[in-house]
Amino acid sequence: MKDIGLDLPSWDDVLTAHERIAPYIHRTPVLTSRFMNELTGADLFFKCENFQKAGAFKVRGATNAVFGLSDEMAAKGVATHSSGNHALSLSYAAGRRGIPCHVVMPKTAPEAKKAAVRGYGGTITECEPSTSSREAVFAEVHERTGADFVHPYNDPRVIAGQATCSRELMEQVEGLDAVIAPIGGGGMVSGCCLTLSNIAPNVEIYAAEPEQADDAYRSFKAGHIIADDAPVTIADGLKVPLKERTWHFVSNYVTDILTASEEEIVDAMKLTWQRMKIVMEPSCAVPLATILKNPEVFRGKRVGVIITGGNVDLDKLPWMA
Amino acid sequence: MKDIGLDLPSWDDVLTAHERIAPYIHRTPVLTSRFMNELTGADLFFKCENFQKAGAFKVRGATNAVFGLSDEMAAKGVATHSSGNHALSLSYAAGRRGIPCHVVMPKTAPEAKKAAVRGYGGTITECEPSTSSREAVFAEVHERTGADFVHPYNDPRVIAGQATCSRELMEQVEGLDAVIAPIGGGGMVSGCCLTLSNIAPNVEIYAAEPEQADDAYRSFKAGHIIADDAPVTIADGLKVPLKERTWHFVSNYVTDILTASEEEIVDAMKLTWQRMKIVMEPSCAVPLATILKNPEVFRGKRVGVIITGGNVDLDKLPWMA
Repeated sequence: MKDIGLDLPSWDDVLTAHERIAPYIHRTPVLTSRFMNELTGADLFFKCENFQKAGAFKVRGATNAVFGLSDEMAAKGVATHSSGNHALSLSYAAGRRGIPCHVVMPKTAPEAKKAAVRGYGGTITECEPSTSSREAVFAEVHERTGADFVHPYNDPRVIAGQATCSRELMEQVEGLDAVIAPIGGGGMVSGCCLTLSNIAPNVEIYAAEPEQADDAYRSFKAGHIIADDAPVTIADGLKVPLKERTWHFVSNYVTDILTASEEEIVDAMKLTWQRMKIVMEPSCAVPLATILKNPEVFRGKRVGVIITGGNVDLDKLPWMA
Repeated sequence: MKDIGLDLPSWDDVLTAHERIAPYIHRTPVLTSRFMNELTGADLFFKCENFQKAGAFKVRGATNAVFGLSDEMAAKGVATHSSGNHALSLSYAAGRRGIPCHVVMPKTAPEAKKAAVRGYGGTITECEPSTSSREAVFAEVHERTGADFVHPYNDPRVIAGQATCSRELMEQVEGLDAVIAPIGGGGMVSGCCLTLSNIAPNVEIYAAEPEQADDAYRSFKAGHIIADDAPVTIADGLKVPLKERTWHFVSNYVTDILTASEEEIVDAMKLTWQRMKIVMEPSCAVPLATILKNPEVFRGKRVGVIITGGNVDLDKLPWMA
C-alpha cells in the first residue's frame, strides 16, 4: 500500500476493531441455496448482515468508532448526517455505550426511520432536504455539541469495522474464489479489500452497482473519482459517491465493478425473498443481479455474497403496484 | 400411551425417521431476537422451518414416508391430495427417490403452487374445488396408479417425521420450559407431543390457532373432535381439522390451545418480517400473536417457537391494500 497521505486503516486496526465490537454485534450466519447454485452455476455463500444488530453491516463500523473513543471524547457524544442505516447504527452503538448521538436528517425522511433512530436513543436535528442545508445544520450541531463526527464510510475507524464482516466470512467458508458486495460510498467494499489483500490476496473482489447510480463503475474505468449529484435508484443505500479513502481501496484492489438495471435488481430481490426466505434491502440484490447477468465471470467458482442489510419498508416493496 | 387400536408412531419410529431423512433435509437454524424477548418478557427460540427444503416442515414427514417404502411399493409411487406445502414436500421427496408423485389439486389452486409441484417432478390431476370431487378424483388416481397414499398429517410415518423437528430443537436449545406451534390438522403439534412426552415430559406444549379456524381449540375444550367445513382465515395452512391420530396426541399431551384474531396474526407476521428479517407464512405468526396476547402464560420462560414454513405469495401480502 503506497503512502498517499491519508490515514488509512491497517490489518491490525481490523483485528483491534473485531475484538472491540464483538460484544455488541452478531457473528452473522452464512446461508446457501441449492436453487441459487443451480441457477448461477456457481457455489454462492450469502453472508447475512440483514440479521445484524440494527439490521445492517453499518453497525460494525459505527460500533468501532464509538467504542474506540477515549472517555473524555465519548462524553461529548458522536454525530453524523444520514437518513439511512448509518444513522440507526451509530444511534445503536452510542446507546450501548451510554453516550449522546446527534443525527442530522432531512425533514422529509420517513417517520419510521426517525422513530427507529429515536428508539435507539439518538437525537435528531432536522434540516431541509438539500446538501447546503444539511452541511449548515450539521456544522451548527457539531460546533454546539463538540461531538465526534463519524462519517458513514470515509473514516478509517468505519472501514476497519466493516472489514470484520469479510474476515468472518473467510473464517466461515473455506476456499472462496471471489467475494462480491454492493457499492455505494464504498465502505463495505473497502473493508473487503482491506481484509482480503491482507489474508487472502488471491481472492477476487467484485463490486456491484445499479446502472442508474453507476458513479463507482465510471470512476473505476476512468481512474479517478466521479461523483453524481442525485442518482435515482431503488437501491437507496447506493446513491452516495466514493470518497478519497474508499477510492484508495477500490482503485487498488477491486477486480471489477459490474452493474445491473432496476428491473434486474427487483427481480433478483424478489427471487431471493421467495427462495431463501430472507427479508433484505434492494441494495443487497445488486450482487445477485450482476451474477445472473454475467454468469461466465462466476461459473464454477465459490463466491461469497454480502447481504448488506434488511431495513426495508414492507409497505412499499418494489414489486407492489 | 394407552392402546386405542390406532397404529401410532413410537419414539423408535422418530429415531429411525431422523436417520432416514437426514440426507434430504436441512437441520434448520434457531434464531433469537432481543427485541422479541423484551417485547414478550420471555426468551424465545425460533426454529426456522421456513428455511427447510421445499420451504416447510412438511418435507420431514413426506420424506420419511417416501424413503420408508420398500422398492416394490416405491415403484408405484406416492399420491396425495393437497394444494399446499404437503403437495410440494411429497413431490420433492419423491423426486429425490426418483419415483412418481401424484397430486390431486383443485383447478382453482394458484398457478404458482402448481408450477412448484411440477418443478419438483410431481404430476397433477385437477379436481373441482369441492370435497366430493376431490375424493372421487383421488380414488380414481389411487386405483389407477396403485400409488401409496401419504396423508398430510393423519399418518404415523408423517407424524414421526414431523417429530424430528422438535427433537432437533431440544438438541439446539437447553432448558426449554415450553414449545409452541401452530395447529391445523395437528401433524406438527403431534410430532412435538411425541418427542417431548418421550424425552422431556416436563416441557409444556402449546398449540396456537386462528380464532376464525378454532376447531382444534373447541375440540380440546369439548373433549372430542369438532371439524369445521370451510373456515376462512389468512393462515391458510391451518384450515384443516384434526383426525384420530393427531387428536390422540393433542388430547393427551397438549397443555393448552390459544387463539388469535386475524388482525393480531397479521400484526405479528409483519413484526417478525420487520425485526427478524425472515419471510414466513401467516400460519407461522399465530404462535407469536398468542404469546403477545397471553404474556402471563410465557413471561420468564424459555419458549421454543416453531416457524413452520415460508411459502408465501409475495404479490398478495396480507398488509397490502
